[in-house]
Amino acid sequence: MSEAAKTLDGWYCLHDFRTVDWTTWKMLPSEERQAAINEFLGLLEKWNVVQENNSGSHALYTIVGQKADFMMMILRPTMEELQQLETEFNKTKLAEFTIPAHSYVSVVELSNYLPSDSDKDPYENPYVKSRLYPILPTSNYVCFYPMDKRRQGEDNWYMLPMENRKDLMRSHGMIGRQYAGKVKQIITGSVGFDDYEWGVTLFSDDVLQFKKLVYEMRFDEVSARYGEFGSFFVGTILKQEGITEYLHVTE
Amino acid sequence: MSEAAKTLDGWYCLHDFRTVDWTTWKMLPSEERQAAINEFLGLLEKWNVVQENNSGSHALYTIVGQKADFMMMILRPTMEELQQLETEFNKTKLAEFTIPAHSYVSVVELSNYLPSDSDKDPYENPYVKSRLYPILPTSNYVCFYPMDKRRQGEDNWYMLPMENRKDLMRSHGMIGRQYAGKVKQIITGSVGFDDYEWGVTLFSDDVLQFKKLVYEMRFDEVSARYGEFGSFFVGTILKQEGITEYLHVTE
Amino acid sequence: MSEAAKTLDGWYCLHDFRTVDWTTWKMLPSEERQAAINEFLGLLEKWNVVQENNSGSHALYTIVGQKADFMMMILRPTMEELQQLETEFNKTKLAEFTIPAHSYVSVVELSNYLPSDSDKDPYENPYVKSRLYPILPTSNYVCFYPMDKRRQGEDNWYMLPMENRKDLMRSHGMIGRQYAGKVKQIITGSVGFDDYEWGVTLFSDDVLQFKKLVYEMRFDEVSARYGEFGSFFVGTILKQEGITEYLHVTE
Amino acid sequence: MSEAAKTLDGWYCLHDFRTVDWTTWKMLPSEERQAAINEFLGLLEKWNVVQENNSGSHALYTIVGQKADFMMMILRPTMEELQQLETEFNKTKLAEFTIPAHSYVSVVELSNYLPSDSDKDPYENPYVKSRLYPILPTSNYVCFYPMDKRRQGEDNWYMLPMENRKDLMRSHGMIGRQYAGKVKQIITGSVGFDDYEWGVTLFSDDVLQFKKLVYEMRFDEVSARYGEFGSFFVGTILKQEGITEYLHVTE
Amino acid sequence: MSEAAKTLDGWYCLHDFRTVDWTTWKMLPSEERQAAINEFLGLLEKWNVVQENNSGSHALYTIVGQKADFMMMILRPTMEELQQLETEFNKTKLAEFTIPAHSYVSVVELSNYLPSDSDKDPYENPYVKSRLYPILPTSNYVCFYPMDKRRQGEDNWYMLPMENRKDLMRSHGMIGRQYAGKVKQIITGSVGFDDYEWGVTLFSDDVLQFKKLVYEMRFDEVSARYGEFGSFFVGTILKQEGITEYLHVTE
Repeated sequence: MSEAAKTLDGWYCLHDFRTVDWTTWKMLPSEERQAAINEFLGLLEKWNVVQENNSGSHALYTIVGQKADFMMMILRPTMEELQQLETEFNKTKLAEFTIPAHSYVSVVELSNYLPSDSDKDPYENPYVKSRLYPILPTSNYVCFYPMDKRRQGEDNWYMLPMENRKDLMRSHGMIGRQYAGKVKQIITGSVGFDDYEWGVTLFSDDVLQFKKLVYEMRFDEVSARYGEFGSFFVGTILKQEGITEYLHVTE
Repeated sequence: MSEAAKTLDGWYCLHDFRTVDWTTWKMLPSEERQAAINEFLGLLEKWNVVQENNSGSHALYTIVGQKADFMMMILRPTMEELQQLETEFNKTKLAEFTIPAHSYVSVVELSNYLPSDSDKDPYENPYVKSRLYPILPTSNYVCFYPMDKRRQGEDNWYMLPMENRKDLMRSHGMIGRQYAGKVKQIITGSVGFDDYEWGVTLFSDDVLQFKKLVYEMRFDEVSARYGEFGSFFVGTILKQEGITEYLHVTE
Repeated sequence: MSEAAKTLDGWYCLHDFRTVDWTTWKMLPSEERQAAINEFLGLLEKWNVVQENNSGSHALYTIVGQKADFMMMILRPTMEELQQLETEFNKTKLAEFTIPAHSYVSVVELSNYLPSDSDKDPYENPYVKSRLYPILPTSNYVCFYPMDKRRQGEDNWYMLPMENRKDLMRSHGMIGRQYAGKVKQIITGSVGFDDYEWGVTLFSDDVLQFKKLVYEMRFDEVSARYGEFGSFFVGTILKQEGITEYLHVTE
Repeated sequence: MSEAAKTLDGWYCLHDFRTVDWTTWKMLPSEERQAAINEFLGLLEKWNVVQENNSGSHALYTIVGQKADFMMMILRPTMEELQQLETEFNKTKLAEFTIPAHSYVSVVELSNYLPSDSDKDPYENPYVKSRLYPILPTSNYVCFYPMDKRRQGEDNWYMLPMENRKDLMRSHGMIGRQYAGKVKQIITGSVGFDDYEWGVTLFSDDVLQFKKLVYEMRFDEVSARYGEFGSFFVGTILKQEGITEYLHVTE
Repeated sequence: MSEAAKTLDGWYCLHDFRTVDWTTWKMLPSEERQAAINEFLGLLEKWNVVQENNSGSHALYTIVGQKADFMMMILRPTMEELQQLETEFNKTKLAEFTIPAHSYVSVVELSNYLPSDSDKDPYENPYVKSRLYPILPTSNYVCFYPMDKRRQGEDNWYMLPMENRKDLMRSHGMIGRQYAGKVKQIITGSVGFDDYEWGVTLFSDDVLQFKKLVYEMRFDEVSARYGEFGSFFVGTILKQEGITEYLHVTE
């Protein structure tokens, strides 16, 4: 086995960012708007049933700023389900009034730098299972960003010996642990699936914790020398009962 | 605590850049145009009340060149308020005739390189408070740009020891201080919120001071070796009483 | 002859990514939609005949996420045929409801780092022929990405002596061989044809194998120091009998 | 005073690039087209008066290739005037049939590396004044590009001592002087105003001189090691009396 | 004279890439489509006359993949003629159904690294003239890409002494000469005219020769260390008698 070692992989994950075309949305007669909302709520109900059956999970957040209006984060056991879900949404009435803004395809991943407890199958470990197949939290805020490990001149993560990477990741993880209880972090791997190597999704009831965590980590060698970051998205929770109001327009 | 140390964080901040779709705007009957302007002025009145209550602040500037037609800069105590404000604007009639051009999400920040006065809670310090929760000036000109500290080969800000960074920032700050009275600067942190690490918003009654300040700073080691800059936006104040004229079209 | 040595080149290859414009597609009367689907199925039938005659091959996959809705990968003996095929598709009714999302032009290639068996014409070798003129598999999943060999400071692949490159490619190939039976890989060369130097298309019945393979390879020096990667696309098979359902909409 | 030293700054400058939407332009009844042209000619007449009064200057050039169809370069004493001019153009009928293609905001600048003649106020020097407040030439050709001084590893202009920069600029300027009489060059500073640090606008009656000048300079250390260049635009003069023909369409 | 030395410059060159909007094209009544084709054929006839008079040349090729549908490459003695040609095409009926996809502005150039035969005026040399004012071949395939010479850290072409550059170019040219008879190459200089320093247009009856030539050259130090490449376009010849069929649609 190579230096890459093993990762543990859980549910497949789609982050789907959409922008509402408010102008055409307002042109729709209000009954048709309500029908479109109802159809979307029906879709969410189906997703709720999946979540109650522990066969997947999802979260719905607004996005602050013009990068998108809202984000659907969806976890499922297979890539097919993600593809079908996405196509099903694309065929809804509401989708006619949303513009694709960004997406990210990945799979929930536990790092290969974790100490291995024993010889047991880690997929049978209840703690590991709860992290590979997580029910997404309903925190007030979300933060998403993709990232790479750098391969540039002297700063080439993938040319470091396994031991060095392990040490660096250990101290890196210690920063994260200081935020336990304040920030919940879901790491998804996207090598071979999307343009960056990982997606990071953070959940918190205090949006400032995202800034503190990411800023503090940036001084850690793993990020300082080896982190390459994509776009950052931040948003507030969009509860199912708030969707009608969120999409309410007069005209 | 890590080398990152603390920052002081104030109001959340949205820079929202819009381009007017003059072609469709002119197609609108003039009464509808006036109604759209009135609705927007009503929104501004609500924002004025918030500002009078010291519960936030806002500024409205045109942008010179094709990057955008105008910018709304809005400060609020919570991220939710920014999200709601943005959605409220998006649902207005005027928004149907504007095209999102750019946005930036951040929070007013005081640097961790400031000397700490005492053991007192800095958030109780009136000077600190006035800077964390600022009422935006009504200067003639605005300049906005986002920036990163570089992490590249030998020029890696985040690998420098705290002491070096402190020294570098001290001499950097001295340049800024020479512009006291000429340029007002608001630094907003965006690590974890948007694509750069900071946003810089400058206000002045003499637009040339932006050029002088940014150019002089570029020779300072903090910028010369460690600064990475995004797009620059420059504009002139758009007073509330000038909006009707600004949006006036014949046809 | 230069250090570049020879490659073996087979069928020309077009990866054509399309996004469905579901909104306008739904506006079409259902009989016209069915006619458009039938016309497309007729096109596929013609392609099937070509494939049965071993005069080319093709594959149809959905793409997960917003980068595209589906991908057509088409192999033909000449560039003209690819051009004609593309134009023929562009003139179909279905094409009116798809938006070009991405494309890649290349030619199936066998690496010049392969040991040469003998003095015989390699194009007469049945194994070589089966790889240069492959019938594309009907695996459950596909992964596509383009790549370059890096030319950057000390990490300049094209300045390495032939022997070093041969050694590096040999160990690189050994990782790939561990995935034999799990992942089928088709390398297409695009120097002079498109923006990267190679396209890599992976097929597997287990989508996770893409991530494992690409991640493991990233620690190999060929990728770690010399690989530059473009966008990654991942998708699920779209069988001919599933097209009608895939494109089915109500309204 | 820092190593940045002083620059002399003159008129503010807007480069405004537009693409004609010929398709919709042709749809307009010919009288409305003529009215739109007349309105634009009226605007130019106003600009002519400003130029005759030495209160600004402007130039109108076509752009070759698809980057834009034409460019308006406008000089004015204040940023407000540029903003108003731009808005006034945006509200014209002709603007409905043009698509913004690019813009650049800057201010005419004389380099701080010029030897200072004396203790006199340079803004009173007639030669300096003629360069800070230039009437734009009516040469056959124009060339525009923005540029930065590099800050990259060992090649960091802003970390060089003032003396070195002075020496380098002196020899750099000598190349430019060889083109005196053949190429007129206007340097505008855009630090704090737009995305690059300078804009360079060249005028000549022989378009080949642009290539010769820029190519020769590229071997000079200032450009070779320290120059970063943006997009280049080249065009031919569009005389006021040629506008009607330029915009003439049949249909 | 500086290290840049002289180049010989011939006809000005416009590469104009267009994408057909097949959807709107099909909406046009067939007589109007035929009229649009006839108008375009009339334009080509005018260009043919210019070519017969040795006052310019042009070539028409399809482009494979989604980057564009076809390319017009046009050579003329002056930049004005290119500008007028482009505007004339933009005003045609056919142009209403094409979308500008890319363009490149340059001038046919002979390298300053060529040995100078004698003291005679090179512009009088018949071989030189045939290369500066070439009649474009009607080869089966075309390949176009723009390129720069690198200025990056240790790999800075423009900081090399003239002698080194001469030596490097000589061996570089020898690779090209091996393709004599197989590939015809036209180098156009674009310093000061467009975003890269050169455009390379290759013509061949065997499309694979483009790949072999560019790949082999990439191992040569001039490309390996000093070449920076833009997008590659590859296409097949579109003969005048094939245009009607190429643009033929049913509906």
